[in-house]
Amino acid sequence: MKLLEDRIRKDGIVREGGVLKVDSFLNHQMDIALFREMGREFARLYAGCGVNKILTIEASGIGIACIAAEEFGCPVVFAKKNKTKNIAGDVWTSKVESFTHGRVYDIIVSKDFLTEKDRVLIIDDFLAMGSALQGLIKLVRDSGAELVGAGIAVEKAFQPGGELIRGMGVRVESLARVASMDPETGVRFVGE
Amino acid sequence: MKLLEDRIRKDGIVREGGVLKVDSFLNHQMDIALFREMGREFARLYAGCGVNKILTIEASGIGIACIAAEEFGCPVVFAKKNKTKNIAGDVWTSKVESFTHGRVYDIIVSKDFLTEKDRVLIIDDFLAMGSALQGLIKLVRDSGAELVGAGIAVEKAFQPGGELIRGMGVRVESLARVASMDPETGVRFVGE
Repeated sequence: MKLLEDRIRKDGIVREGGVLKVDSFLNHQMDIALFREMGREFARLYAGCGVNKILTIEASGIGIACIAAEEFGCPVVFAKKNKTKNIAGDVWTSKVESFTHGRVYDIIVSKDFLTEKDRVLIIDDFLAMGSALQGLIKLVRDSGAELVGAGIAVEKAFQPGGELIRGMGVRVESLARVASMDPETGVRFVGE
Repeated sequence: MKLLEDRIRKDGIVREGGVLKVDSFLNHQMDIALFREMGREFARLYAGCGVNKILTIEASGIGIACIAAEEFGCPVVFAKKNKTKNIAGDVWTSKVESFTHGRVYDIIVSKDFLTEKDRVLIIDDFLAMGSALQGLIKLVRDSGAELVGAGIAVEKAFQPGGELIRGMGVRVESLARVASMDPETGVRFVGE
């Protein structure tokens, strides 16, 4: 998606160690007009797939998921990283490794909100190692829901997550696929 | 806001210990069509106030904030509860006590995204003890931004947060104000 690629080129900051900072528009401050265009693109890509639920994970996937959900006319469910007192009853659960935070955590979704009646599109802001996405896919499969695919804002295509997930037979659509990046020369996208 | 009150009456579940579960439509599964109407109401209430930034806190405020932001035509910034590697540089910080989770945590916002040029509306899903809202207000005031007010989905008006914050001279608009609630008789709203 050219709009997102252009924005990453303009406002993204590449740091040493494979860090791409997009926190001025994507995952700390959020440009909702951009999210609307991204939501429309996800709706175009997954048109006719019968998506009736969007699943994401807290926190930075939620904004993109909510705007996209309006395009699909469906609700959003977000997986929680910590079990709170207010989620009683049965939950679907899996484990996610965060390479940014250097730890493994449990994610949960109430069984009330992910069932075999659902046709689920997973939405998240980043795909790199694929751990969060694998965790979300496990929740969907455990629930008996149909997994339609995944919609990702930024895929670090030089990391293994995308190929790993596609190798599992899951459709993955990423709006911007970073082929390589460098603090001096910036970002190069797949196909450039 | 009658639409939200009616929805709480229909789908909210009151548990012992002052717990109001609204996770089927507000803070785990999210009804985006409802959020759109809530966003319109916030825009009506704060029309002409020059809001140019919405501030919320992860995770469950983000969805409401993003939909509302589209009504104001402004970006959202969400305060983060854990410092991640990817936020470098200076941050505004304050402390929030979570009564649900039984702990105190730091919240942060990058100084890049909250400045004296901003006219800020804080949006969150719940107001009870007021700790999260106080923490967000401190971030705004420390930054030199103008605090326009707060827009809350559900205020537990029988808890002290609302009066505390209004007593600080901050405008607080809550779309549903719960006067009392009981597992047997359900929810009663202020004014009923």
